[in-house]
Amino acid sequence: DPSLKVFSLNSNPELAKEIADNIGVELGKCTVSRFSDGEIQINIEESIRGCDVYVVQSTSQPVNEHMMELLIMIDALKRASARTINIVMPYYGYARQDRKARAREPITAKLVANLLQTAGASRVIMLDLHAPQIQGFFDIPIDHLVGVPILTEYFEKKNFEDIVVVSPDHGGVTRARKMADRLKAPIAIIDKRRPRPNVAEVMNIVGNIEGKTAIIIDDIIDTAGTITLAANALIENGAKEVYACCTHPVLSGPAIERIESSKITELVVTNTIPLSEEKRIEKITQLSVGELISEAIMRVHERKSISVLFD
Amino acid sequence: DPSLKVFSLNSNPELAKEIADNIGVELGKCTVSRFSDGEIQINIEESIRGCDVYVVQSTSQPVNEHMMELLIMIDALKRASARTINIVMPYYGYARQDRKARAREPITAKLVANLLQTAGASRVIMLDLHAPQIQGFFDIPIDHLVGVPILTEYFEKKNFEDIVVVSPDHGGVTRARKMADRLKAPIAIIDKRRPRPNVAEVMNIVGNIEGKTAIIIDDIIDTAGTITLAANALIENGAKEVYACCTHPVLSGPAIERIESSKITELVVTNTIPLSEEKRIEKITQLSVGELISEAIMRVHERKSISVLFD
Ligand SMILES: Nc1ncnc2c1ncn2[C@@H]1O[C@H](COP(=O)(O)O)[C@@H](O)[C@H]1O
Ligand SMILES: Nc1ncnc2c1ncn2[C@@H]1O[C@H](COP(=O)(O)O)[C@@H](O)[C@H]1O
Repeated sequence: DPSLKVFSLNSNPELAKEIADNIGVELGKCTVSRFSDGEIQINIEESIRGCDVYVVQSTSQPVNEHMMELLIMIDALKRASARTINIVMPYYGYARQDRKARAREPITAKLVANLLQTAGASRVIMLDLHAPQIQGFFDIPIDHLVGVPILTEYFEKKNFEDIVVVSPDHGGVTRARKMADRLKAPIAIIDKRRPRPNVAEVMNIVGNIEGKTAIIIDDIIDTAGTITLAANALIENGAKEVYACCTHPVLSGPAIERIESSKITELVVTNTIPLSEEKRIEKITQLSVGELISEAIMRVHERKSISVLFD
Repeated sequence: DPSLKVFSLNSNPELAKEIADNIGVELGKCTVSRFSDGEIQINIEESIRGCDVYVVQSTSQPVNEHMMELLIMIDALKRASARTINIVMPYYGYARQDRKARAREPITAKLVANLLQTAGASRVIMLDLHAPQIQGFFDIPIDHLVGVPILTEYFEKKNFEDIVVVSPDHGGVTRARKMADRLKAPIAIIDKRRPRPNVAEVMNIVGNIEGKTAIIIDDIIDTAGTITLAANALIENGAKEVYACCTHPVLSGPAIERIESSKITELVVTNTIPLSEEKRIEKITQLSVGELISEAIMRVHERKSISVLFD
């Protein structure tokens, strides 16, 4: 269908290529570069008049560069008479700033929603939002895809004997429950608490993990502090082995070092955020969300329900 | 007046301090830092409820970081119940992307206007916009200050004998005319043209410069290509000496090297963009717009006309 165009910006060129290949189109021709002073220069090099355009861009690190690239691209597409401008944002940056936890904090996740709409986005396709409430920050259609099945399938193939799925905090229990149902396994929860102020946190484990293969699941792994402490606590408390998985491998700061020296056997992530060279270590396995996203785009384009993708 | 607050973000801390001192207030307490993954974290550390807040931030290099800092700060101020959020933007980044010069280009200067308004800005105070039309991109009040008098005053004190004010291109003639009027001097124009495609540009000088002290004036000096070629052409054509001046010293890429090795005696700029260590060379003199901006803020706050600042 010549009215469907897929463009890549600078965050996920490989994923965008995979999506275009799956759909059976060439990636749209455009160059995204910088002027001498660092300002973003975008040249769209083919007509997109009247087309349904899909722009693949995660607002991963460097988040502010990727965000501005996306906003400027949307502006250019709008002025070039695209029919619809559909943002494929595998990773939604600033999702953790989704409420005023303290006085006078910004709610940057809402700001981002407003900016995308102001620039001219018609729709956003997202994956495993940090909080599903962020969908309500938008007044345009959101398609919220789920990465858990991709991670689960990988572990299914391992045919572990005696599994327990572990949520690293109270906020992640629903996600752990979903994976556990698919794996027909029980869950456990890491119940962190600080007995008194200025005293180290205690990692209390709720649930039976003795002798089991533990799979910790989270949405984002950033500095990997929580997950590596949790893994070590699980081993100390009798777990046989510990695996970890997440949709979004932010892996900033000391993350790689911490994972390397932790008791985690393997960390399974997706490619909503690409792994730079130094993050491609043996312990980390990366699975692609390309098929899931391509399927979603084709269904959206053919006006079919995408709810089947959630099962 | 305790209802007037001045906050600085990361682009112009010294200028912001000077403005606060002039007005007689302390700079507002806030920290603008980065999370481990590069996301911006803003903490406003004092109540601003019901206050008229002035935020000083140029969208100078790194432009996308400075832009996002500003948008997130506006969001935080809005949610913290500021009465008005007044943006003091000495340098307006992306101002040169103010029209579709080619097919399918963004108009990023307009996008920036939309983003600032969406975030919640009540007013923007700006200085020497690349194109005054950018004021029309906003639907909120704009106060557009003029830096030419500051530059002119500096040259007046030099008491040069026989001056000619030079515009480096056709677009800058009005600006050159203004300075020339104040200095009671004639103008000249650099008339660049390319005789045939793929042939070097010819620098043709319109106006009499023989034996005169030439002062080239521009709004932005970025890579300094135009201005240094112009200076050398002026000397070759008989000018006695060449000075250059501009409001916004972007000075990216080869700018400093070019200025050093050019025939320019002295380059006079303002502090709408601070000069990093390696740009503080002997040939460059930096004048402050602090007094001009403080005066504008006080007049705005006291509901007085600011048009007197243009004379
Ligand atoms: N990029 C970030 N890195 C680390 N912490 C963040 C980031 N963005 C927001 N936060 C903080 O993380 C908390 C929200 O995390 P959560 O409780 O997991 O939803 C809030 O207190 C935020 O201030
Ligand atoms: N940051 C930048 N650096 C260099 N050129 C730019 C920049 N932003 C926009 N431009 C280009 O500069 C031209 C406008 O400059 P002007 O003719 O001086 O208004 C347009 O063709 C833009 O594509």
